Amino acid sequence: MSAQQKLVPISYRRVRLTHGFWADKQRINREITLPAILHHSQSTGRIDAFKLEYTATNSRPRPHYFWDSDVYKWLEAAAFALGNSHDAELEAKVDHIVDLIAKAQQPDGYLNIYFTCVEPDKRWSNLRDWHELYCAGHLFEAAAALAEATGKRTLLNIACRFADLIDTVFGREPEKKRGYPGHEEIELALIKLYRATGNSRYRELARYFIDERGQQPHYFDLEIKTHGFLPGWHYLNGHESNQSHLPVRQQTQAVGHAVRAMYLYSGMADVAAETSDPELLVACERIWENMVERRMYVTGGIGSTQRSEGFTRDYDLPNRLAYAETCAAVGVVFWAHRMLQFEGNSRYADILETSLYNGAISGVSSDGRRFFYVNPLESDGTHHRQDWFDCACCPANIARLLASLGGYLYSSAEQTLYIHLFAESNASVEINGFSIDFVLQTDYPWSGQIDITIDPDREAEWTLALRKPGWCEQALLRVNDQVIDSLPLLRNGYVHLARCWRRGDRVSWSLEMPVQHLQAHPRVGNNAGRIALRRGPLVYCLEQTDNGPLLHEILIDAASQWTIENDMELNARVLMGESWRENSPDSKRLYPPALAAEYRRIRVRAIPYFAWDNRMAGEMVVWIRKMLSAND
Amino acid sequence: MSAQQKLVPISYRRVRLTHGFWADKQRINREITLPAILHHSQSTGRIDAFKLEYTATNSRPRPHYFWDSDVYKWLEAAAFALGNSHDAELEAKVDHIVDLIAKAQQPDGYLNIYFTCVEPDKRWSNLRDWHELYCAGHLFEAAAALAEATGKRTLLNIACRFADLIDTVFGREPEKKRGYPGHEEIELALIKLYRATGNSRYRELARYFIDERGQQPHYFDLEIKTHGFLPGWHYLNGHESNQSHLPVRQQTQAVGHAVRAMYLYSGMADVAAETSDPELLVACERIWENMVERRMYVTGGIGSTQRSEGFTRDYDLPNRLAYAETCAAVGVVFWAHRMLQFEGNSRYADILETSLYNGAISGVSSDGRRFFYVNPLESDGTHHRQDWFDCACCPANIARLLASLGGYLYSSAEQTLYIHLFAESNASVEINGFSIDFVLQTDYPWSGQIDITIDPDREAEWTLALRKPGWCEQALLRVNDQVIDSLPLLRNGYVHLARCWRRGDRVSWSLEMPVQHLQAHPRVGNNAGRIALRRGPLVYCLEQTDNGPLLHEILIDAASQWTIENDMELNARVLMGESWRENSPDSKRLYPPALAAEYRRIRVRAIPYFAWDNRMAGEMVVWIRKMLSAND
Repeated sequence: MSAQQKLVPISYRRVRLTHGFWADKQRINREITLPAILHHSQSTGRIDAFKLEYTATNSRPRPHYFWDSDVYKWLEAAAFALGNSHDAELEAKVDHIVDLIAKAQQPDGYLNIYFTCVEPDKRWSNLRDWHELYCAGHLFEAAAALAEATGKRTLLNIACRFADLIDTVFGREPEKKRGYPGHEEIELALIKLYRATGNSRYRELARYFIDERGQQPHYFDLEIKTHGFLPGWHYLNGHESNQSHLPVRQQTQAVGHAVRAMYLYSGMADVAAETSDPELLVACERIWENMVERRMYVTGGIGSTQRSEGFTRDYDLPNRLAYAETCAAVGVVFWAHRMLQFEGNSRYADILETSLYNGAISGVSSDGRRFFYVNPLESDGTHHRQDWFDCACCPANIARLLASLGGYLYSSAEQTLYIHLFAESNASVEINGFSIDFVLQTDYPWSGQIDITIDPDREAEWTLALRKPGWCEQALLRVNDQVIDSLPLLRNGYVHLARCWRRGDRVSWSLEMPVQHLQAHPRVGNNAGRIALRRGPLVYCLEQTDNGPLLHEILIDAASQWTIENDMELNARVLMGESWRENSPDSKRLYPPALAAEYRRIRVRAIPYFAWDNRMAGEMVVWIRKMLSAND
Repeated sequence: MSAQQKLVPISYRRVRLTHGFWADKQRINREITLPAILHHSQSTGRIDAFKLEYTATNSRPRPHYFWDSDVYKWLEAAAFALGNSHDAELEAKVDHIVDLIAKAQQPDGYLNIYFTCVEPDKRWSNLRDWHELYCAGHLFEAAAALAEATGKRTLLNIACRFADLIDTVFGREPEKKRGYPGHEEIELALIKLYRATGNSRYRELARYFIDERGQQPHYFDLEIKTHGFLPGWHYLNGHESNQSHLPVRQQTQAVGHAVRAMYLYSGMADVAAETSDPELLVACERIWENMVERRMYVTGGIGSTQRSEGFTRDYDLPNRLAYAETCAAVGVVFWAHRMLQFEGNSRYADILETSLYNGAISGVSSDGRRFFYVNPLESDGTHHRQDWFDCACCPANIARLLASLGGYLYSSAEQTLYIHLFAESNASVEINGFSIDFVLQTDYPWSGQIDITIDPDREAEWTLALRKPGWCEQALLRVNDQVIDSLPLLRNGYVHLARCWRRGDRVSWSLEMPVQHLQAHPRVGNNAGRIALRRGPLVYCLEQTDNGPLLHEILIDAASQWTIENDMELNARVLMGESWRENSPDSKRLYPPALAAEYRRIRVRAIPYFAWDNRMAGEMVVWIRKMLSAND
């Protein structure tokens, strides 16, 4: 059994988002979000910190040990933007920062602002809680992206020098530290560095970090003893917090800090693919199953508690106190994308799409200027987007995802072109040595109509694998206006259309997109008697600005009919339906006697979850109470 | 305007709990809980730590900076037990520990194990986060209790020497530190010390600590700078965490760590009373109103989040993620008892009773051996009582409350005997120079029938003020079998029965005690469409062991009829009623399409909230879904 990835993602550089939902998001990302993040990075001192001018006595801002990563992630996002389209001004800014980074690198290759300026004697002394290896990983990712986008290898060389140093420090050889990062990231980044350079030492170092994790004697126990604490001491939930409670191959559940988990599992998938390691892949699949069937919000968000920013227990999915960090949903997209390439199984694409369209892009406002770190499924009106965060991981994470989104749509396999996501785009693909251009037109996610025009450089037989989303019950396939029964062609959630394709062939894929009422597993107690609205890949919510306060007085009927309207302000389709409102008693008392409730008919208006908190501040709810009707 | 307390609590030493609910609890507390706490205190090294033998190099357990307080609280509880009944064995144990404490006191009067053995150079250096003054307060409380119960003044003298030292260290004089404790407690304790000794310097020191709190420049800002952090830095929510965000007279809301808050507000009420300070009392009333109408669970628990162990926002009262620390509910009882003495207004007694019968005594198991630190209103089956906690504040807190419970039942005023709580007891009271013995017989809280036989030493006119609980809608008053219309006599929630009382006069107070369905204010979103069951002062809950798993599938009808049964195992009355169970779909999926629900009639069994998790482990729910019936 092997664990090779049969699919290869089509690079974002070969895909142009031309129009519509994602092209709009990508444009705002480039024009507004990237400059905004750079502005905040500059004004907080993150960029200039690379000048290493901080001392304990001067007035420069004291660097934090994760500041480097914020800048690297911006650089990576900027690299993708440059890969999408030329921008001399942006490239000059990138070059300037790369120049600063180059000067900040120490003679031995070491690179971290904090541990160079503030606590130089603490290098590698607290892998569990500090973020040196995490920052290094983001450097590697940025370097690989920049080399691919611009051909410039300055940052890649910096990254390799640092990676080479790390390779001399960590490993199983007796003279090396047998450690691994408390915050994963470097594992998947080393694989990118390996792919960018072909240097297999980076792959082996990634494999080492993956496999050393959780071994006994436990590195973090030994390390914490040197800081004067008892082995096993942790401010949170022990070794599960950073997924080091067990060797990764023995792990069965999604645990601990959710972002760390996603980066680890992504790295595991990468190493499984690059080393054809089925055991590692099986571990990924087991953890995946646990996550998506027991520990994920309907929005594709993950992380049920602020305390550990992470997973808790099966079916523990509180709505208002959800953590569902933007970075974690972005991390789900990363991991799902990797899992999808093994077999082309659409269950990974379904989750990828859910997290992307809901819990991830909810992280940035519609104008691209404000961000959510935490993405709850309910708000009493006190949760709002912010311009920036002291811990600023999320803005650049969503920015790099949006800038590289073209790379998530398609894959090629030996004889097959896979279409995973539906976004209006042109793409150019090579399969088996011949080249296929194609144009995809759609108003997705607002409409389920997808039209593809194929333009191969020669007539040839190959397979178009068209995803049938998990949310879709009815779909109609036409090739050159001829209806084709897609059911027999469905395998792993994709319609496999094998034929001899000719220039100008047209495929029409019509996905019925009704409003769906979802319920939660009965063990998710807080969602008992509640439903969530979904249309296509989008989860909807109610906002106070549309529906008045006390959204919990609103009940939706199983029989509710919905109409779809266009909201110009939100640039979104919204749902209008009949529902009920429970009359509240006038009592100001906290716990008055229960009165017989009265209900009146009202109109309710639901908007896509990702679009909430873009207008007047107020309550929001995803899980809406369900009216129990007589025939129910 | 003055703020004197018109009422004086009748000491627990003049009240004997003879039989029934509280006598049982008190007996278990004395026979099981007090020895258990002592055992754990010994086995963890807390007692022997007073020998000051710990060094960094030997193998003795490293003391924690709040260990002292655990021992003092046990001593206080033991003192109350001795005050209730002679127990030579217990007294010998107490004497032994007092002896250890005496030897641990430093020549200058200082007394704290941690800052004597572990970090002697850190005395008073971090008032915000460490607990020196908090521990001192518990010493003072124990000392006052022990002197009252046994007449032995050794611990009182130790306490006074330490208080005298503290008085030289803290204050507004230029040579003193202008600090105050991060964890309040010493304020109310200094008032106890003042009352035990008559030394007004202790009262003035309490007043100083109360009034200095939150003044600018902010002491904790100055202090944290000396530790190398920025002013205002706090690991949680800034100065609100310890109620120092504003001078206390300007505070309007119950904020921050809930136990700290209760101890502060109790101290404020004490200082208001002892210094006739109406402004301070008004501040207490304002904060009280905010707490009970917006920030309290139906169980009388407080603290909506584990993060700060404290208050959050108005109407933010999640059930499963409630913190509702046992100590905090005990603190509500303390504060309410103080507020009650000002005017004899039963709104304070109502909350006292609610917190006592639900959120406080839920903190100890029915066998007295196991404890809750956190008292959620819902559990998925993973929350359980424990034998002990590293941070062991709760066991001794509930123990000292139970041991002194007799002191909460009655008060005297100039011409009035107040009956606040109903517990089978004998008491002996002095009013206006004459003495009244009386016997109260009741099966409360299981029954609302209360019978009082008065035995004054002479015939005289005075007033019996009998509380009509807030939960009670119908009550029947009889004096010597003659029905009396109590409505015109009702003032501040007490029936004021003024007459010439004779030996053998009998008062019968019959409180109707139906099962009540409560709802929550509509802004408590998680309780929308749910009801809580209350009978008398007791809130009820459903447990899995009685009702099967998936308690959220159970719906209660507005029209549900309840019968009351005796449960021998729980030693409690339980509620039996008709309800509905929603059939769950078989799907294992996390978010399947919503199906039409089906309901079947079931019998449901509810037990008192305080009694949960005493049998087989499983789910628990207080807020039960409400069936929406056609006529509803």
